[in-house]
Amino acid sequence: MNGDFLQCSANYIPLSPISFLERAAVVHGDKPSVIYGGLKFSWKETHQRCLNLAAALVRLGISRHDVLEAKVIIVDYQCLQLVLQAFKELCQKKLKPPLLILIPESDQLSSNGIIGHELPPGSLNYNVLQGIKAEAEFEIRRPHNECDPISVNYTSGSTGNPKGVVYSHRAAYLNSLGAIFQTEMAKMPVFLWTVDMFRCNGWCFPWAVAALGGTNICLRKNLSAKLIFESIYLHKVTHMCGSPCILNILAHHASKSDQIRPLKSTVNILVAGALPPPQILKQVANLGFNVSHGYGMTEALGPAIVTPCKPELDSQHNLMMEGVDVKDPNTMESVPCDGKTVGEIMFKGNTMMLGYLKNSKAVNEPFKEGWYRSGDLAIRHPNGYIQMKDRARDMIMSGGEAISTLEVEAVLLTHPCVLEAAVVGRNDDCLGKTPCAFVKLKEGSGCDGNPSTSKEIMKFCGEKLPAHMVPKVVVFGDLPLNSTGKIQKFVLREKANKEVYADTTSLHE
Amino acid sequence: MNGDFLQCSANYIPLSPISFLERAAVVHGDKPSVIYGGLKFSWKETHQRCLNLAAALVRLGISRHDVLEAKVIIVDYQCLQLVLQAFKELCQKKLKPPLLILIPESDQLSSNGIIGHELPPGSLNYNVLQGIKAEAEFEIRRPHNECDPISVNYTSGSTGNPKGVVYSHRAAYLNSLGAIFQTEMAKMPVFLWTVDMFRCNGWCFPWAVAALGGTNICLRKNLSAKLIFESIYLHKVTHMCGSPCILNILAHHASKSDQIRPLKSTVNILVAGALPPPQILKQVANLGFNVSHGYGMTEALGPAIVTPCKPELDSQHNLMMEGVDVKDPNTMESVPCDGKTVGEIMFKGNTMMLGYLKNSKAVNEPFKEGWYRSGDLAIRHPNGYIQMKDRARDMIMSGGEAISTLEVEAVLLTHPCVLEAAVVGRNDDCLGKTPCAFVKLKEGSGCDGNPSTSKEIMKFCGEKLPAHMVPKVVVFGDLPLNSTGKIQKFVLREKANKEVYADTTSLHE
Repeated sequence: MNGDFLQCSANYIPLSPISFLERAAVVHGDKPSVIYGGLKFSWKETHQRCLNLAAALVRLGISRHDVLEAKVIIVDYQCLQLVLQAFKELCQKKLKPPLLILIPESDQLSSNGIIGHELPPGSLNYNVLQGIKAEAEFEIRRPHNECDPISVNYTSGSTGNPKGVVYSHRAAYLNSLGAIFQTEMAKMPVFLWTVDMFRCNGWCFPWAVAALGGTNICLRKNLSAKLIFESIYLHKVTHMCGSPCILNILAHHASKSDQIRPLKSTVNILVAGALPPPQILKQVANLGFNVSHGYGMTEALGPAIVTPCKPELDSQHNLMMEGVDVKDPNTMESVPCDGKTVGEIMFKGNTMMLGYLKNSKAVNEPFKEGWYRSGDLAIRHPNGYIQMKDRARDMIMSGGEAISTLEVEAVLLTHPCVLEAAVVGRNDDCLGKTPCAFVKLKEGSGCDGNPSTSKEIMKFCGEKLPAHMVPKVVVFGDLPLNSTGKIQKFVLREKANKEVYADTTSLHE
Repeated sequence: MNGDFLQCSANYIPLSPISFLERAAVVHGDKPSVIYGGLKFSWKETHQRCLNLAAALVRLGISRHDVLEAKVIIVDYQCLQLVLQAFKELCQKKLKPPLLILIPESDQLSSNGIIGHELPPGSLNYNVLQGIKAEAEFEIRRPHNECDPISVNYTSGSTGNPKGVVYSHRAAYLNSLGAIFQTEMAKMPVFLWTVDMFRCNGWCFPWAVAALGGTNICLRKNLSAKLIFESIYLHKVTHMCGSPCILNILAHHASKSDQIRPLKSTVNILVAGALPPPQILKQVANLGFNVSHGYGMTEALGPAIVTPCKPELDSQHNLMMEGVDVKDPNTMESVPCDGKTVGEIMFKGNTMMLGYLKNSKAVNEPFKEGWYRSGDLAIRHPNGYIQMKDRARDMIMSGGEAISTLEVEAVLLTHPCVLEAAVVGRNDDCLGKTPCAFVKLKEGSGCDGNPSTSKEIMKFCGEKLPAHMVPKVVVFGDLPLNSTGKIQKFVLREKANKEVYADTTSLHE
C-alpha cells in the first residue's frame, strides 16, 4: 500500500480550536456561553461577537502574523491606569504607543465615549466596535498550517525573567481536549473562572468549554469565598481551576463561617502550583469539592501531570503528552524507579509550545535532544509515580546535601500559625548555603513575629525534619507575589543574602 | 511573528492511536484491558502481547505498507472453514495462499499444534507466536507521517460492492477521541463488545478504550440477551455499541422474561443503522439503558452524527467532524433550513477516510469539490437538525413523487406483527416504480404470511401514509442480511423485479 491517497480539504483540515467555536455556534447555538453578572451570551452570540471583533481588527489593519510590534492593546478598565503609565513612558522615549481599545465596566456598556479617563487620541471603546456587525461575507481566517502560531502567553516570571511562549493552533486544539480529559468534563460543563485567562490561555479551558458547549461563569475582580460560593449555587458550577490560593480562600471561609451550605453536587477543582497542606485539602473535600493537583508550566500549555487528591487514584499525565520521564540531564538516561535517584522532569508531546518569542537561544536550550527540559527535579517510585522534589534552581546545596525547599515548606505549612511559607538558600561560609524561611502568619492565630515564634517554628521543624533541613533563619511578613499569585523566590533569595538577621545565631543555640 | 519556530521531536509527534496503548501500559498498567470468559489481561500485558505479535510479523517478513497482496491471514477458529474453502479456490487458480495464523478456542490455549484441522503446511498457532516474547530492543514502528495508512476496513457491501476503506493514523487517533465524546465515556469505562471490531475498526472503540484505560469485555459468538445481561451484571458494563438488532434482542428478552433484574447503573448504548421503532426504544430505556442513535459510514470511521433518543437532547455531529451539511449535489449550495428541501448529506473533517484501496476512480468521486458525498438524502429543520430521508439509491421515484423507503419501513415496523421490514422499488409500466415491502413476521404474533395479512398490512399503512407511499406488494419471509446484519436491499430489488407476485392487483383492489 503506497502513500498515493488523496489528501484534500474533505479529509484534512488544519487542527485549530477555532473549530470548537464554529461547532458550538451550530450544535449549541442557543445554549449560554458566557455569564458575567447580569450579562449573558449564547454560543451563537459569542460566535458573532468573535466575528465582529475579528472584522474590526482587520479594518484596523491587523493581519496574519502581526505580533512582533504590538499594534493594538485591548485593556480592561481595571488595568487602564497601568497601561496609561506605560504609554507615558513610551511617549517619553519618543516611541509610538499602540492603539488602545478599552473594555468599560458593564454599567458603561451603552456609552459611546469613554467616561472619566483621559485617553490617547484615537482610542476606541470595545463595545462600540462590537456594535458594528461583521459583514455577512466576513470569514474567519483559519491557519494555513496547523503548526502556525495562535497566541503568545507570558510565563509568570517566578525566575525574574518572563518569557513570551508561543502556542500553535495544533497544540491548542489538542491541549483543549487534554484539559477535558484531565478534569473529566462531560457535555455542557459550567466552568467558574477562578484562574486567569491570560495564564497559559486559561490552561486552554476557554476552548475546552467551547468544545463541549459549556458555560463560562466570569468574575472580574475581588475573588472572595462568598462570591465563589454564590456563583456555584446560582449557576450549578461543575468545574473550577486555579492556584492553591483558591483552596486557602475556600477552606478559610468554611472554617470561620457557619453559613456555608454543603454543595448539592460535586465541583471538580484543579489547582496547579505547590501542593496545599493536607488539612486544607481535607477541609475543601469536606465541603464537596473534588480536588486534583496539577503540575505543569506555561511551556506545556498548563498542567501536564494531574494527580487526584485521593489516595486510591493514580496520577495521570495529559492524554496528549506523548512522553513524560525523569532523566539524568547529562546522560539523558531515565532514572531508575527506586524512589530516591533524583533527575530532571522532561516532556515531549504535541501539547508543548512552539518556542519563545524573540529569544532563539532560549528556544533551543530546553528542547535539546528531543525532550523539553522542565528544570524541575523529581524522583520516580517503583510504581512509576513521579514525585517532584524542587525546581533545580530552588534546591539548596548545604554541606554537600541537597535540600528540597518544597519539603521544608510542606512542614512549615502544617504549623497551626503559618499561612504561607517560602524557603530559600542563604550564603553560609561553612556550609555553602543554609535554609532561610520566610513566613506569613495567620491573623488571629495567637503567634506574632517575635523571636520566640521563630524558635517555636524551628523546634517544630526539628521534630519533623533532619537537622540540616531545619531553617536557620525565620523571617516574618508578607511574601512577594507575582501577578499570578506565585511567590517570587528570586526576590526572597536576594533579601536573604543582603539583609543581616541579627538574631540568627542566638535563636539557633 | 514569522513561522521560524522550532518543530522537533519534543513538540511534534505524528498522531497515532499507538500512543494510547503505550500510555495505557504506563498509566493504567495493572488495570484490566481485556476480559474474555476466564481470560484476563492487564494493559501492561496487552502492550507486551502487541509487541510480541508485531515482532512475530516482522520475523515473518511483513514490513511497512505491506497490504496490496495479503501475505498473512490471522483467522479465528470460528471462521476457519470459510478460509480453508477460499484457500482451496486460490490453489485451483494456481495462486499462492497467504500464511495462515490460527487463533484457537481458549481450551486449546496450551496446545502447540492445531487440533482437528487439516491446515496448509507452514500454518502457525497464534498462541505459540505469543509465547515468543519480543526482544527487549524491539520498538513499535510509528508512522513517519501521521497521514500514513493504519488499516483497511471493508464496507458492509449493502450496495453489493464492498470497498476497502483506508484509514490514516491521524484520523484513527482523532476519531477515537470523537468516539469518547459521542458516548460520554469517563475514565476507565467498561465496554461490552456487541459491535464487530472489523467494522470501521469497531468504530475506533478499541483505541478509545485504551485511551481511557478502560476494560474490553469480549464475547465471541452467539450473542444472546442472557449473555449480554450476565456480562453487564458481572463486569459492571458502562458502554455498548451495535446495530439496531441488539436493541431488538434486549427488548424481546425483556418482554418475555420476568427474570430480568433492572440495571444497577445506566449503560450507554450507541446503535447505528436504521432507527428502531419507538416501542423498542422505550422498552430498552425502561431496562436502564441510555440509547443514542448514530448515523455514519465506514468512510467516516463510524457514526458521524449521534442523536440521543431523548427528545430534550439535540443531535450532535462528531466533535472531530469539521463540516456537516445538506447540499444540492449539483450546485453544492446548502439547502435551506425549511424542513422540506431534500439535499445530500456531505461531510468534511479529519475523521474521513484517506480513500479506497485499489480503486482510484471511487476515491475521487465522493471527495469531489472538497466534501465527502454520502449518497444519503436529508432535509434540514429550522433549528439546524438534519433528518435523514433515505439513501439516494434507495429512494423510489413513483409517478414523479420521491418516496423515502425509510419512512415506509418506519410505519411497517410499528405494526404489531412485523419484526423486520425493507421496502424497495418495483418496476411499474405506468408509475415508473412502486413500493414493494419485504416483511419478516414476529413468531407467535398470530399473523401468518397469507394474503389477508398482506391486505391487513396495506390497510395499516394506508391509514398512516399517503396513497402513493403504501406498498403495492408485501412479500413475507426472512430478509437477506450481510455479515454486519444490514439488510441487502440490492438483493431484494433484484427479487422484486424478477419474480412475479400474482396476487398484487387482487390485493390492491
